[in-house]
Amino acid sequence: MNNKTATPVTVIGLGRMGQALAGAFLKAGHPTTVWNRTTSKADQLVVEGARLAPTVGDALKASSLTVICVTDYKAMHELLGANDIELDGSMLINLTSGDSAQAREAAQWAEQRGARYLDGAIMAIPSAIGTAEAVILHSGPQSDFEAHRSTLDALGTVTHLGTDHGLASLYDVAGLAMMWSVLNAWLQGTALLRTAGVDAATYAPFAQQIAAGVAEWLPGYAKQIDNGSFPAEVSDLETEVRSMAHLIEESEAVGVNAELPKLIKAMADRSIAAGHGGEQYPVLIEEFGAGR
Amino acid sequence: MNNKTATPVTVIGLGRMGQALAGAFLKAGHPTTVWNRTTSKADQLVVEGARLAPTVGDALKASSLTVICVTDYKAMHELLGANDIELDGSMLINLTSGDSAQAREAAQWAEQRGARYLDGAIMAIPSAIGTAEAVILHSGPQSDFEAHRSTLDALGTVTHLGTDHGLASLYDVAGLAMMWSVLNAWLQGTALLRTAGVDAATYAPFAQQIAAGVAEWLPGYAKQIDNGSFPAEVSDLETEVRSMAHLIEESEAVGVNAELPKLIKAMADRSIAAGHGGEQYPVLIEEFGAGR
Repeated sequence: MNNKTATPVTVIGLGRMGQALAGAFLKAGHPTTVWNRTTSKADQLVVEGARLAPTVGDALKASSLTVICVTDYKAMHELLGANDIELDGSMLINLTSGDSAQAREAAQWAEQRGARYLDGAIMAIPSAIGTAEAVILHSGPQSDFEAHRSTLDALGTVTHLGTDHGLASLYDVAGLAMMWSVLNAWLQGTALLRTAGVDAATYAPFAQQIAAGVAEWLPGYAKQIDNGSFPAEVSDLETEVRSMAHLIEESEAVGVNAELPKLIKAMADRSIAAGHGGEQYPVLIEEFGAGR
Repeated sequence: MNNKTATPVTVIGLGRMGQALAGAFLKAGHPTTVWNRTTSKADQLVVEGARLAPTVGDALKASSLTVICVTDYKAMHELLGANDIELDGSMLINLTSGDSAQAREAAQWAEQRGARYLDGAIMAIPSAIGTAEAVILHSGPQSDFEAHRSTLDALGTVTHLGTDHGLASLYDVAGLAMMWSVLNAWLQGTALLRTAGVDAATYAPFAQQIAAGVAEWLPGYAKQIDNGSFPAEVSDLETEVRSMAHLIEESEAVGVNAELPKLIKAMADRSIAAGHGGEQYPVLIEEFGAGR
């Protein structure tokens, strides 16, 4: 596709992810300027039609929209922080990995320099960039997101989470916690079933069904958290803890690692000790939110 | 419904779950005999048409199919183990909570006493019994399950997992591990997002989507486990662990409990220490299956 009216875009940082981002912009027909400290990383992109800017300042000037994807926030500040770099009027979209505090600080810094700023997080591997599978989260002023949404669409499934610049990073790590937790619970079950000669492929659809089924409860359980009231409509924590003890005993009896079940039970035990044994599972939010 | 051709059924044990089971058989038109040590637990069921047997032996004789749901396996052996109790020719379906070893032992004991035996696990709360939502897992001889399936259908969505009597208990605890893990990961994310003023209801659909999305990977990942080969097609463990460190740092920075992220990372760190840093996530099965 070659779209002569497409918005010019600059990509700063050409690691594997930055290269994928620039490649997706090029494929969608955007005149694309790139910059990287090691210029050889741009070779393939130049073949595909990208323009390699000689300096970061030139790269920024080439387009009204600049996407940044470097090692970390420190690297971003080193690259863009020098006083001779003109940021006034630039629209920066920072997809560099970092935490919510770094994102909020960067937004303040950009504002002081006269730039508009969106923070983002990429929930995808480089090879998925440019497909609907690549979920890219954005946070910051809604109007800035809307103004550039059609350009960002070239990268994948893009979402705006809210005006707080820290949201993209928070949703990102929250989503990763869910990912590893589903995988670990599945591994726990797979290890248990393997002791009975059941292969992983046989057990997987069962685990898949449970995970998807439990996920459907979340909106309802969320209401309990937002209301701060946890009536035991389905089951109380005392009952859950007895089943958790079964899981630990069964795991240990068949020689499967019981660390995950033990952590699950320890958190519930603490909630019961705090007087919540007759309440429903989401009351555990108080253990998670307590800040240990 | 009153179906005069329906199979007579006996239910032994009338706790909340046993009462629900007997109630569901009655509603489906099965002539239902019940027994419980404390006979008052049968009062409502008798009003609904159940027959209260004076002894366990009488209860067993009343029907060719007996469903047992008592406190634990010890209670079952105390009730049915006496030599003057005739089990020869009985079909026992034991829905009592226990572990896989207890289920296999009970199957041997029942066989020695001339009874046929299926072990089961109820993945539901009493109020769901009799609806499709109540998943009831069975393991033991397939022919015994098939012979009684139409009767068991009265209780909920019934499934046969395989001939090994320990399977129902193993799938049950594996499913519970998935349930608590999805809930805990959601609570972790909810706690993180609340620090930015995002309410639980706003975050829940995102968590739901991630859980369901990751669940879809399981059949593919299962192939790696069954093949014992873990090429990093999507991402390697070294990369994952860097993101795990981010999750821990972000949690601690905003005052959210980091125990769950720390366990996730500790298990991955051990796998990397064992030389698997360049392999894909399911290689962690070796940590789960190692038997600590």
